[in-house]
Amino acid sequence: MVRKIENIVREEMDAAGAQEVFLPALHPLELWERTGRAQYWGDELMKLKDRGGRPFCLGGTHEEVITQLAAEVKSYRELPFTLYQIQTKFRDDPRPRGGLIRVREFTMKDAYSFDREVAGLDESYGKMVEAYHKILTRIGLPYQVVEASGGGIGGWDTKEFELPAESGESHYLLCEACGYAATPEVARFRQEIAELTEPPRPLERVDTPDQRTIEQVTAFLGVPARKLVKTLIYTADGRVVAALVRGDRELSEDKLRESLGVRMVAMADGATIERVSGAPVGFAGPVGIEEAEIVADEELRGERNFVTGGNEADLHVRNVNWGRDFEVNAWADLRNAEPGDLCPECGEPMKGRRGIELAHVFKLGTIYSEALGAEFLDEDGRRKPMVMGCYGIGTTRMMAAVVEQFHDEHGTIWPASVAPYEVEIILVNQDDGGQRELAEKLYTELQEDGYEVLLEDRAERPGVKFKDADLIGIPGQVVVGRLAGEGKVEVRRRGGQSRTVPVEEAAAAVRELLSANLPG
Amino acid sequence: MVRKIENIVREEMDAAGAQEVFLPALHPLELWERTGRAQYWGDELMKLKDRGGRPFCLGGTHEEVITQLAAEVKSYRELPFTLYQIQTKFRDDPRPRGGLIRVREFTMKDAYSFDREVAGLDESYGKMVEAYHKILTRIGLPYQVVEASGGGIGGWDTKEFELPAESGESHYLLCEACGYAATPEVARFRQEIAELTEPPRPLERVDTPDQRTIEQVTAFLGVPARKLVKTLIYTADGRVVAALVRGDRELSEDKLRESLGVRMVAMADGATIERVSGAPVGFAGPVGIEEAEIVADEELRGERNFVTGGNEADLHVRNVNWGRDFEVNAWADLRNAEPGDLCPECGEPMKGRRGIELAHVFKLGTIYSEALGAEFLDEDGRRKPMVMGCYGIGTTRMMAAVVEQFHDEHGTIWPASVAPYEVEIILVNQDDGGQRELAEKLYTELQEDGYEVLLEDRAERPGVKFKDADLIGIPGQVVVGRLAGEGKVEVRRRGGQSRTVPVEEAAAAVRELLSANLPG
Repeated sequence: MVRKIENIVREEMDAAGAQEVFLPALHPLELWERTGRAQYWGDELMKLKDRGGRPFCLGGTHEEVITQLAAEVKSYRELPFTLYQIQTKFRDDPRPRGGLIRVREFTMKDAYSFDREVAGLDESYGKMVEAYHKILTRIGLPYQVVEASGGGIGGWDTKEFELPAESGESHYLLCEACGYAATPEVARFRQEIAELTEPPRPLERVDTPDQRTIEQVTAFLGVPARKLVKTLIYTADGRVVAALVRGDRELSEDKLRESLGVRMVAMADGATIERVSGAPVGFAGPVGIEEAEIVADEELRGERNFVTGGNEADLHVRNVNWGRDFEVNAWADLRNAEPGDLCPECGEPMKGRRGIELAHVFKLGTIYSEALGAEFLDEDGRRKPMVMGCYGIGTTRMMAAVVEQFHDEHGTIWPASVAPYEVEIILVNQDDGGQRELAEKLYTELQEDGYEVLLEDRAERPGVKFKDADLIGIPGQVVVGRLAGEGKVEVRRRGGQSRTVPVEEAAAAVRELLSANLPG
Repeated sequence: MVRKIENIVREEMDAAGAQEVFLPALHPLELWERTGRAQYWGDELMKLKDRGGRPFCLGGTHEEVITQLAAEVKSYRELPFTLYQIQTKFRDDPRPRGGLIRVREFTMKDAYSFDREVAGLDESYGKMVEAYHKILTRIGLPYQVVEASGGGIGGWDTKEFELPAESGESHYLLCEACGYAATPEVARFRQEIAELTEPPRPLERVDTPDQRTIEQVTAFLGVPARKLVKTLIYTADGRVVAALVRGDRELSEDKLRESLGVRMVAMADGATIERVSGAPVGFAGPVGIEEAEIVADEELRGERNFVTGGNEADLHVRNVNWGRDFEVNAWADLRNAEPGDLCPECGEPMKGRRGIELAHVFKLGTIYSEALGAEFLDEDGRRKPMVMGCYGIGTTRMMAAVVEQFHDEHGTIWPASVAPYEVEIILVNQDDGGQRELAEKLYTELQEDGYEVLLEDRAERPGVKFKDADLIGIPGQVVVGRLAGEGKVEVRRRGGQSRTVPVEEAAAAVRELLSANLPG
């Protein structure tokens, strides 16, 4: 089952020209410090020291280690290449869930491509995406490719392969009309800016003792959340930025980073916020703020007379109007998309969907190779950092997804490609000599035909056997029962069709029923 | 290569009826505390805390975790069973070496059997030992089965499978006459006790300022190491024991533990030593020692007038004689065996050998199941702890051993069973249309015959191709060169024979040459 999934993954990786390696799980922490990720990952990265006191971390992912390995390659002649491994990853998730889906350790296949230039990366990336399509199709899992954020890995053109599932913990937006799909943080949408019909009213200071959060302020002032504008103070590659979004929206750090053209954005710390706003955390606003560039979500072009923090303790201001009360340095799409937002491709409203993330691909470029000195000598005699891509697919997660996806009220319905056995022979009455002989004959024959066969001949009542067979969910079932006397057996597909056939035709009937990976 | 080794291991485990599982690498430290092994392993066990401050360790082995899993089984009806996994182990070795042989993490297959009683364990153990014989034979590695110590795992009937190798870090004794083999700590031998011819001389106190070690005292007093008797203070399940062995011998803790019939022995701490000897560490002796049982190595029956510590700072005593100056509470074989000791089976002198430890099997009994409450309800209605065995075989280590074992001055000579490819077709002149056509035809044909084939058609000189082919060491080589015009090719076994055959017979010749796993 997991092993079969791994074998499918290996076959498609090998077919795509990737080479298998096995990297260590213990990484010198120093490598993660050189790329800046030790800090970025924080407590999610599990750290320890060896008996000599040297700091290590448990690999949450393997960009650093593989980049160091790839640095052994010195010449453009040895590029491009793609390496992969199937490995345990360790991540100390702040919200671990039970079950197989999200735990501190899990197994995934991760691959890394190394190219001379971006055009080569695009090709290597294309091969891996193609391999992922094949893997998921062979396993039988439905999936949606979704534009996504680079998150803790970085890069661009990141895509997730999501299994649509109400129980999933990923969210994305889908346009059912044209198929555009993206996570809320990166989803583009057609911006409809409201007309400014409301006349500007005079600016008004309001005492709001101890009211800091959106909920507190809107309740206290009796205004809807959309009339309140959040002022979020960020540092962006050293700059300090005040980002404005409507109170009922979520800021997208991905969009903020992109709109500013910087490598990294992070919420400013308390000291910075107090310095630029001149007030305790929770009362920042755009009116009179100093030292911070103001970037505003485009939606606010259509808003007048809103409420913001007053840059003083326990103070908000009402009837704030951009242009009159403060200047916006830049307008940009800064917010997470939401269900109902209009598809950027075709203009239809998008739907909110949930899914289980099965795979994730990233174009990394030279972020890691520059930080770790993975350079090669190019044909033109110049040293250049390798251009990298990275590609992950969860093997234990696909296993959990198969179980989640394929079941009915009786139990699991295994796809043939990853089933524990392909055929179960149910010997209804194990004390009936004729039935037993027939069952054992079929057992041998089907094995000789190359099937993985389980013979159910326990001393249990027939009802128990049928129930257990459906629970386990082996895709092919051959029932050897009362009709055995007439030389007939029943051939069934778990979750699908059933036929009674003469014994001689049983193997052919099994072959036909299992010719599709999933029951029709 | 490693993957092929893993597949051979899996096939033999499955054939022996073992079931594959995959256990976590992060273990709650508390489990290891319950079995007492957290303390026993000390710094070799790598420890860390999660973000909530809960203590974990990295699995150095999996007895605790698997025993907790097995505790889910409640009835004798579900016993016996054997579980296995192929997993990364983490051990912070105090003397890590380079290369693949001993590092902080390595991959092994470990299996654990669970039985109702010892007779069942013997059977489960026998199946695993048999499977290990098959695995090593299929891979092609020679091995010596060696009686060994339970070490940090525990139990009895422990055996190691050693690859004989001068570069190995394991030591064992071998009787070439009868085949008896055992590690020095557990090897039995025929004891030849010297006759007591020397008359006892008067006991004599000697000041030995600051002389504590064997080297210091023998040099200072001008006596050979064998005339000095070491007095080693141990705690043994709460008792304090003074163990005496000749100065040129090594005490075996395994033999000490067995002779005392206790579960665990450990060197006493400094405070205990000072209390029982009345002197600083380094000056303990049997004469006048209090509170400690005296156990003496049998060899000392043949010794008179020896030197021991004097139980006072800077004091030794000469001409010590057992019986006269102190009483021995028990005589036993307490020392490591050495090359030249006589085989316990046939009496011939044993030889010292070095090896690489490939596998290790243990009968654990109920040590772990009692500590962790893995009990089942037996047929007689009584709750009993499961009877366990444990079986490890190193997959990455076998890979390293294959490379170590099979090579000549030109490179590796892969056994066919684990070679990266089975056949390499060497196209001597890639610009010769006839040669290329023939090579490509053979490439397709041999693949259709089910071989894994590598086609060497790089634009390199023939000498480079032959050299690289020998270096890589693919077992079957087919040379398509000048004789191609006459429809002939050369079929060779790396490290073995070579034949020139007509093209039509090439596949048959390859089959014949590869019919043996190793070149004849």
